[in-house]
Amino acid sequence: MALIVQKYGGTSVGSIERIRNVAERVAKFKMLGHQVVVVVSAMSGETNRLIGLAKEIQKDPDPREMDVLVSTGEQVTIALLCMALKDLGLKAKSYTGWQVPIRTDSAHTKARIEDIDDQAMRADLDAGHVVVVAGFQGIDGENNITTLGRGGSDTTGVALAAALKADECQIYTDVDGVYTTDPRIVPEARKLDTITFEEMLELASLGSKVLQIRSVEFAGKYKVKLRVLSSFEDAGEGTLITFEDNHMEQAVISGIAFNRDEAKLTILGVPDKPGVAGSILGAIADANIDVDMIVQNVGSDGTTDFSFTVHRSELKKALEVLDMVKSAIGAREVTGDDKIAKVSIVGVGMRTHAGVASKMFKSLAAENINIQMISTSEIKISVIVEDKYMELAVRALHQAFGLDARPA
Amino acid sequence: MALIVQKYGGTSVGSIERIRNVAERVAKFKMLGHQVVVVVSAMSGETNRLIGLAKEIQKDPDPREMDVLVSTGEQVTIALLCMALKDLGLKAKSYTGWQVPIRTDSAHTKARIEDIDDQAMRADLDAGHVVVVAGFQGIDGENNITTLGRGGSDTTGVALAAALKADECQIYTDVDGVYTTDPRIVPEARKLDTITFEEMLELASLGSKVLQIRSVEFAGKYKVKLRVLSSFEDAGEGTLITFEDNHMEQAVISGIAFNRDEAKLTILGVPDKPGVAGSILGAIADANIDVDMIVQNVGSDGTTDFSFTVHRSELKKALEVLDMVKSAIGAREVTGDDKIAKVSIVGVGMRTHAGVASKMFKSLAAENINIQMISTSEIKISVIVEDKYMELAVRALHQAFGLDARPA
Repeated sequence: MALIVQKYGGTSVGSIERIRNVAERVAKFKMLGHQVVVVVSAMSGETNRLIGLAKEIQKDPDPREMDVLVSTGEQVTIALLCMALKDLGLKAKSYTGWQVPIRTDSAHTKARIEDIDDQAMRADLDAGHVVVVAGFQGIDGENNITTLGRGGSDTTGVALAAALKADECQIYTDVDGVYTTDPRIVPEARKLDTITFEEMLELASLGSKVLQIRSVEFAGKYKVKLRVLSSFEDAGEGTLITFEDNHMEQAVISGIAFNRDEAKLTILGVPDKPGVAGSILGAIADANIDVDMIVQNVGSDGTTDFSFTVHRSELKKALEVLDMVKSAIGAREVTGDDKIAKVSIVGVGMRTHAGVASKMFKSLAAENINIQMISTSEIKISVIVEDKYMELAVRALHQAFGLDARPA
Repeated sequence: MALIVQKYGGTSVGSIERIRNVAERVAKFKMLGHQVVVVVSAMSGETNRLIGLAKEIQKDPDPREMDVLVSTGEQVTIALLCMALKDLGLKAKSYTGWQVPIRTDSAHTKARIEDIDDQAMRADLDAGHVVVVAGFQGIDGENNITTLGRGGSDTTGVALAAALKADECQIYTDVDGVYTTDPRIVPEARKLDTITFEEMLELASLGSKVLQIRSVEFAGKYKVKLRVLSSFEDAGEGTLITFEDNHMEQAVISGIAFNRDEAKLTILGVPDKPGVAGSILGAIADANIDVDMIVQNVGSDGTTDFSFTVHRSELKKALEVLDMVKSAIGAREVTGDDKIAKVSIVGVGMRTHAGVASKMFKSLAAENINIQMISTSEIKISVIVEDKYMELAVRALHQAFGLDARPA
């Protein structure tokens, strides 16, 4: 008998029929003698509907009330799923975030889980119940409803698995696992049977939508065995996220991620003296704008050019901040560009294989794709290219690194 | 400075625009220096939508999960109303039932309020917040979400007014007060400036939809000053429910209520011996069917006929029960009739004025309306008539008792 946490996203519970399907899958695991905790998102479309209502009332809706509002989405799903489970003759009990309770900090709309009390859930599990928990939500120290932000249901699933010391956390989604890259861009993309936790973390942070990054961080911190599976197909073991760094058996590169979410800002003719980068980024941080890649070119005439990327939706705000910073630091010009894309290759094999970067750059050059910025970590290389070349770059790299074929 | 509790029903918060209107009305009271607690229902249609989802899954939905599900309706409204209040520059804070907390018993879908903790609300009121509470919901001793049943938001409003010792509880609805009868049936129906608590209680129990009966009981028990007003018109003081029995200034009859919610059952040829009525009603009660009017005719041949009314939706079930009882008690025949209506006249003046009943019966006879059953209390007389005569009966009585004109 194992204790399994299963998480189903909005598409997987998007209709009454799909909720029934989830109940039937849960029933199968229960019949095998397992204890099952199910975490669900709001039915697809519901969260956006609620946010739409809020924005009709307040341009910038109050965060505390936003959490009260959107947390109803998951509450509807837990009730309906419990009804479906009971309709199959199973014992089931729903839990909102505050009923668990899942304690978080007070950062409304993007709260972080601080503590989970597993006592009530465990008693229900031991009494033979399927426990159904609302994802994405919690309660702070003053009894306020909080939410973990978009994709937070993954994090709830992993955090519950950690708190309950579950044998496995299964993330059911609309794809049957983690792919070398998005099959919609590269038809030859291949499902991975396993991927290391670090690679998954990089992929998630680089724009792969399969798993929410904080859930992967959580899984890493608490060594939760995580598996990505399809909620629509019964076949297959999905992709297991492993903690063994068995790169000997792995390809050099495991996957290619990409996104068009970013915009690039450049300040030209910045006086090349200590503290300038700090002034620029300090002003950006004060405006609550997150920065991703940062590049500074060494200057020859006593000035330097300084570039960084932000989320595309924040380009306008960031440009306004830089316009003010420009005169303060005596820079020449500020430019912004949202016609960019980020393409990244990820793989723990990179650590021990030289020449990965040069192979990447050569592959792109062979397609005449100009690289605007480069950023690297131990197991990933990201480049910024003009956005119209994104698909071409992904396909070229997928082939160059042998991802089209099964690794040796 | 007064402390006012305002309750807005589903129609009053049925759209974003209407929620804005409610916020503006609340703002006016706040500007006058009052402390305001607002209780809201789910947006109109929302509760039925949720119940519809549940019934798609389970024919007879699990009551605990039903409460988890439908309580989201009011939770959406409190969040949206707080946003609208904040958009007007007011301080506002929403409370779900469990956040107050409003403690109830564990009777899911029809729980009763046991206790309200006013501490958190009072602190927020003193800090200048408008407090917005989800109607209709509470929490039981085991942290389960409960609901008070249909119309329960009125009860929440009155119970909060009692707990906070509010100066007035204002029930905003789609009519501008309590009428002598439904103006859709009798165009001459007149709005009452005041009505006694007892009359209101009878009217509510007899099918007037203006106030939910348990809220009136609650108001009576805790002497809450209750006022019914329109949420769509600004003019008028509505109808105040008073505790003074000032019938000297009142008409004999205050109002006429009616409904088509009931069905009549009759057992013919019942052996006329002690305990028979008990056996019949005991069997009905065991089947969880509520009985309203009961009439037993004295028999001449050693048998008697026994009639009672139940909610129309329970006629089939009640007939099945009676068919079993019939043979057990040796009765001759069981009949059921759902083509009936109940018409009632209500007024504290009845206590001191003789002849009210005969005047009622004569008025109906003058219209050739046959009376099938009669039931009386100190301040009301109800009759069962064939349902096609209901409107005619109401109009005849409205005129006969001088309700068309202003009372002397």
